[in-house]
Amino acid sequence: MKKVLVIGAGRVGAAIAADLSTKHEVTLCDVDGKRLEFLRETKFDWASHDGIKLVRLEFAENIEPAGPGEYWWLSDTAVLKIPVGLLDDKDIVVSAVPGRIGFQVLKKIIESGKNVVDISFFPEDPMRLNELAKEKNAFAVVDCGVAPGLDNMILGNMVWEMDIKDFECLVGGLPKERNFPFEYKAPFSPADVIEEYIRPARLWENGSLVVKEALSECELVHFDGIGSLEAFNTDGLRTLLNVGNIPNMREKTLRYPGHAQMIKALKAAGFFKEENLANTVKVLFENWKLNPGEKELTAFRVTVKGFHFQELTDKTVVYQFVDTTGLDGTSSMARTTGYTASAVVNLALDGKLEGMTGIVPPEEIGKARGLFDYVMRYLFNRDIRIERIDK
Amino acid sequence: MKKVLVIGAGRVGAAIAADLSTKHEVTLCDVDGKRLEFLRETKFDWASHDGIKLVRLEFAENIEPAGPGEYWWLSDTAVLKIPVGLLDDKDIVVSAVPGRIGFQVLKKIIESGKNVVDISFFPEDPMRLNELAKEKNAFAVVDCGVAPGLDNMILGNMVWEMDIKDFECLVGGLPKERNFPFEYKAPFSPADVIEEYIRPARLWENGSLVVKEALSECELVHFDGIGSLEAFNTDGLRTLLNVGNIPNMREKTLRYPGHAQMIKALKAAGFFKEENLANTVKVLFENWKLNPGEKELTAFRVTVKGFHFQELTDKTVVYQFVDTTGLDGTSSMARTTGYTASAVVNLALDGKLEGMTGIVPPEEIGKARGLFDYVMRYLFNRDIRIERIDK
Repeated sequence: MKKVLVIGAGRVGAAIAADLSTKHEVTLCDVDGKRLEFLRETKFDWASHDGIKLVRLEFAENIEPAGPGEYWWLSDTAVLKIPVGLLDDKDIVVSAVPGRIGFQVLKKIIESGKNVVDISFFPEDPMRLNELAKEKNAFAVVDCGVAPGLDNMILGNMVWEMDIKDFECLVGGLPKERNFPFEYKAPFSPADVIEEYIRPARLWENGSLVVKEALSECELVHFDGIGSLEAFNTDGLRTLLNVGNIPNMREKTLRYPGHAQMIKALKAAGFFKEENLANTVKVLFENWKLNPGEKELTAFRVTVKGFHFQELTDKTVVYQFVDTTGLDGTSSMARTTGYTASAVVNLALDGKLEGMTGIVPPEEIGKARGLFDYVMRYLFNRDIRIERIDK
Repeated sequence: MKKVLVIGAGRVGAAIAADLSTKHEVTLCDVDGKRLEFLRETKFDWASHDGIKLVRLEFAENIEPAGPGEYWWLSDTAVLKIPVGLLDDKDIVVSAVPGRIGFQVLKKIIESGKNVVDISFFPEDPMRLNELAKEKNAFAVVDCGVAPGLDNMILGNMVWEMDIKDFECLVGGLPKERNFPFEYKAPFSPADVIEEYIRPARLWENGSLVVKEALSECELVHFDGIGSLEAFNTDGLRTLLNVGNIPNMREKTLRYPGHAQMIKALKAAGFFKEENLANTVKVLFENWKLNPGEKELTAFRVTVKGFHFQELTDKTVVYQFVDTTGLDGTSSMARTTGYTASAVVNLALDGKLEGMTGIVPPEEIGKARGLFDYVMRYLFNRDIRIERIDK
């Protein structure tokens, strides 16, 4: 049995731990004692697993030199104390911490020389850690969730099939029940959602890198079983921005129609101004909390257009799915993001990523046909049914 | 020349002072020195007038016993110091203070024994001061603006014409230019607007007094020259609630379509909860400020249905107007509210209200045909063209 450390016991981290525990020895750690207590009490009984070791981490207020065998991890406001040996015996580490501290945590894991799969969605450029990871002869698969993540792998896979002219990823995590006024619940950190609504979106248009306002170019799209959704620009391409040679690339977030207008209204009214933001975030958190047991879903559609090498014609390929909260209660966002990550963890533990070092964006996994097929099959086995449509 | 004291130098108070100064000796006082300075510098040159005496009032932090000839007025948070003799030589007083302190100010004026015309729109029941006013042999015409005010007078006037079965007042102050997301500017104290959106609306329905949520029963109505407006329930009937014998009565606020939905969304999201209200009010104030020179308008429609005594048939009578910012720059809300009040001040100074004591709601003015016609003519002469339609 291999040993895995999962840092961050939120919805996604817990789902990854549960999934991996069927085959590996998993330690799950978090600073939130209540959350760990909740997981311990429910004994992860919403998922099949072997015993998962739960470790509570501590924040330290004063920064001191790290003692031998101890790691000190910086967040914005505090220092995270890692018990002696928590990493030492692990074969791989998964980082599922909030985006705000994701980069610092990743840096510390890489410094420890461990391989890592990261789904923390941090705003910094991961390539800043490329040299460090290579020095340590370690790899870090970053943005390894559903989107970013799965869409990158699809793109990587399609590179061998066609000369891609246009890439579009539509993705959204949504509550099943739609309530006034937002018709939205955040299946992951609400702070990261608000960040998406504020940060300008970078995309490729006719061969140029352009920047558009978040929430811009809002359009209606249809998903079978859901109906109409709206799709608007967000800054989700990330490492895909550097793929090159694809003249049109965009990522859009999916919501129930009307949500974007509501957010734009709050923005225009000034609720997102620096001096009002803290209060607004507090109100939105309250609104966007998924209730215990509340059902949610993930809608996903990647459309790739280009000139097909074998068919010698212009072609459109669509990968899409609508996934819902699992029968075991695992949220759809945790399923789709978490199982993509755990698929890659298994690839790594099986030695299939041998030779990879440095920062590995998911499109690199996708480019390796065997690895891509493995991830697809892995998700299929967990009832995430990704449909491919060739047009 | 008669002597008039106007307390409160906001848009409406200043318009009343300017209007009355063409015939009377007017003193205008306020605690806001900057506002008085602004009025002094512009020399009221946006309105014809004789010299208006401007007096700055002071707030005192510590409550002490009032000295002889001095008045101490309570607000929620402070004490308002009135200079010796400011009221003594006045023939009538106009209160145009914010609703928040309106009741306390009115009480103090009545205690001084002076007659008063009040447009402060305070939330308390004015009838609580009825006995005091009668004791002092003084009258206080309350709610003496456009609505409440003019609509009450119309109702009072119609009482002689028909057995009223249904009374509806639609009224709104709106900016000429419509901007996302509120399409609204507050032509009077924004705090009073928010209060209107929170306080449940009391109305008569089929002979029963019922309470409905503010912003409820939102419907579209048409005004020539504007187009579609929305009308929703607000708690504006006030003294009309006690008129009796009219089975259906409602007051609705007019806004550009979509405004109510936006407010309901903020409400539903929790922005109007006690702990968030201060921040929300700050944001709304910023949005709802009329810019210097910004044009606004007032839309007004009173519909009275009933059995006509002379025509011996069911009948509908509509009084309506759309008024815009005056050529002299006086805002429409200040014109329609202020000139209704100054009409009544003139009636009082002409001795036409002789015999009235206690709290006088405007419907009592309307019941006296000569007085109603005087007010209508007074507004017509100031270019507020109220149309009557008999159906």
